[in-house]
Amino acid sequence: MSKGRIFSGMQPSGKFHLGNYLGALENWVRLQNDYECFFSIVDLHALTSKFEDTGSLPENIHHMALDWLSAGLDPERNIIFIQSQVKEHHELHLLLSMMTPLSWLERVPTYKDKLQQLGAQGKDINTYGFLGYPVLMTADIVLYKADTVPVGEDQIPHLELAREIVRRFNHLYRPVFPEPLAQLSKAPLLPGIDGRKMSKSYGNEIPYAASPDEIRGRVRLIVTDPQRVKKSDPGNPAVCTAYKFHEIFNASQLDAINAGCRQANIGCVDCKKNLAEQMVVHLADIHVRRDKYAANPARVKEILFYGAERARKVAAATMEEVRQAMHL
Amino acid sequence: MSKGRIFSGMQPSGKFHLGNYLGALENWVRLQNDYECFFSIVDLHALTSKFEDTGSLPENIHHMALDWLSAGLDPERNIIFIQSQVKEHHELHLLLSMMTPLSWLERVPTYKDKLQQLGAQGKDINTYGFLGYPVLMTADIVLYKADTVPVGEDQIPHLELAREIVRRFNHLYRPVFPEPLAQLSKAPLLPGIDGRKMSKSYGNEIPYAASPDEIRGRVRLIVTDPQRVKKSDPGNPAVCTAYKFHEIFNASQLDAINAGCRQANIGCVDCKKNLAEQMVVHLADIHVRRDKYAANPARVKEILFYGAERARKVAAATMEEVRQAMHL
Ligand code: SF4
Ligand code: SF4
Repeated sequence: MSKGRIFSGMQPSGKFHLGNYLGALENWVRLQNDYECFFSIVDLHALTSKFEDTGSLPENIHHMALDWLSAGLDPERNIIFIQSQVKEHHELHLLLSMMTPLSWLERVPTYKDKLQQLGAQGKDINTYGFLGYPVLMTADIVLYKADTVPVGEDQIPHLELAREIVRRFNHLYRPVFPEPLAQLSKAPLLPGIDGRKMSKSYGNEIPYAASPDEIRGRVRLIVTDPQRVKKSDPGNPAVCTAYKFHEIFNASQLDAINAGCRQANIGCVDCKKNLAEQMVVHLADIHVRRDKYAANPARVKEILFYGAERARKVAAATMEEVRQAMHL
Repeated sequence: MSKGRIFSGMQPSGKFHLGNYLGALENWVRLQNDYECFFSIVDLHALTSKFEDTGSLPENIHHMALDWLSAGLDPERNIIFIQSQVKEHHELHLLLSMMTPLSWLERVPTYKDKLQQLGAQGKDINTYGFLGYPVLMTADIVLYKADTVPVGEDQIPHLELAREIVRRFNHLYRPVFPEPLAQLSKAPLLPGIDGRKMSKSYGNEIPYAASPDEIRGRVRLIVTDPQRVKKSDPGNPAVCTAYKFHEIFNASQLDAINAGCRQANIGCVDCKKNLAEQMVVHLADIHVRRDKYAANPARVKEILFYGAERARKVAAATMEEVRQAMHL
């Protein structure tokens, strides 16, 4: 039996890498076993910060669908769709906007932060739509009456706001929506190969759905304990980036590697070769699925089309209730 | 040949009176001869200030449709519809919101004014949707590529903003929308029967689509020159409310009345009887049409349904262009 209904989305930014996969997508793959899941490529949200450059949207959306399917999200069990293809998102967003106090949006902590952050990059995104981001997110969730929303720490205030908007709607009109609950996902944080935060802009990423040889090539470049010059020097796993990778992809051998490193029984080259093979095994299915779907873009389109149809059915039923409650 | 395409809307407030008719609707009736017109009952706009009490919306919408049809708007020549029944309004509103700077909305002069005004009445409507009013209005207009918008003085800043948003869209993506032009309507201002502004809350209104006897009854109560006590006293039309009515409904006899009043040749009772009969003639068609449509609510529903279908076709074609331009 399903534990409940999940809505979750990702912006099609076109910058997906292995760290992103571990950060959210791997969790979704687990969740699909226990929940009824709506996974949405939220292209409308992408507009909040990238309305000036939408030329790469179609490609980014296609790649995101490939990423998800490669990860093992089942397009039958889950409803996988593009947000903008379900017009009820726009409709509910507008209706909820009417009852959402401006002050609720202005006090969201991430709002001013993100404005500043993007302002520093020379991007002026202080638009009406950017301020309304949490209203759109609320509409996304409650349109499907999702009761559970997997979120990272930074999304907690948005979900709190969604719950406030739901309470206000239910109080003003009629109890139509459940209050969605945040499910904090504790995802492992994978560093980049140079030890900094993994990011395509640093060039330190491991590509997602990489081939075995790509994985091997990137792992060879992972920085290790900088104090360990010769193989006979004892190493310190605590300051080794490769070891952080072992923690995630090679948990069963962790104690042996720790000891072998500290006692200078294993060399860094071999240690990383071992790591690479573990990662190749761990990520093999992803690569295979990626190849399969990449070779068949029509199938990917079909999946998204079918997903939007199923999403629309649920959304339309909710909107029927909403309009009745509001006398529209 | 049509001079262009018009979009105009009214909020279904349920407070329509004869003054409102002269203020806007009578103008629409003239415009339908020269323009291709989209007339919309903008129920979504009504939510910006009345989201807390939507119970009377269905009745108000029905009455507004009756008001319009009674006025003589032709449901074949014009596209008459309810805003919320055309989902493209919601969709375009969301897309335009993404590219509308917050500062453009905050500086609209009517924004702070109306907030204060309603705040003084104890209504807290400082919502996200209320701030976005001009974005929704822009979407309304450009969805039909209307090039002409009949507006009152107070709406000029909103239309200026609409033109700015259009320019921004056309510049960012592709020239999809024409810049709508304001057509300032110089409507005669009909006072209430007590000489103050006509308003249902003052109880000084003349009902719209009133029967001949209702008109006669209300006209009897119109205040006249307060200095003129006896019929033999000369009167002063300049301070007489009834005379203001003559100016609007009885232009051809104006000079005679002016002279007769100043020379004490006509009495106020007769003067207003004359006025009442002029108004009865002038407004007879409205009353008859009102009776006809009121007796047939199914026909009114049908007209609105048919109007929404026609509006949707035009709106869908525009949205197709919008989505292509934005790569959605
Ligand atoms: S042996 Fe392994 S854990 Fe130790 S420093 Fe080298 S790569 Fe890191
Ligand atoms: S005679 Fe007519 S115009 Fe003169 S004061 Fe009376 S109502 Fe007014």
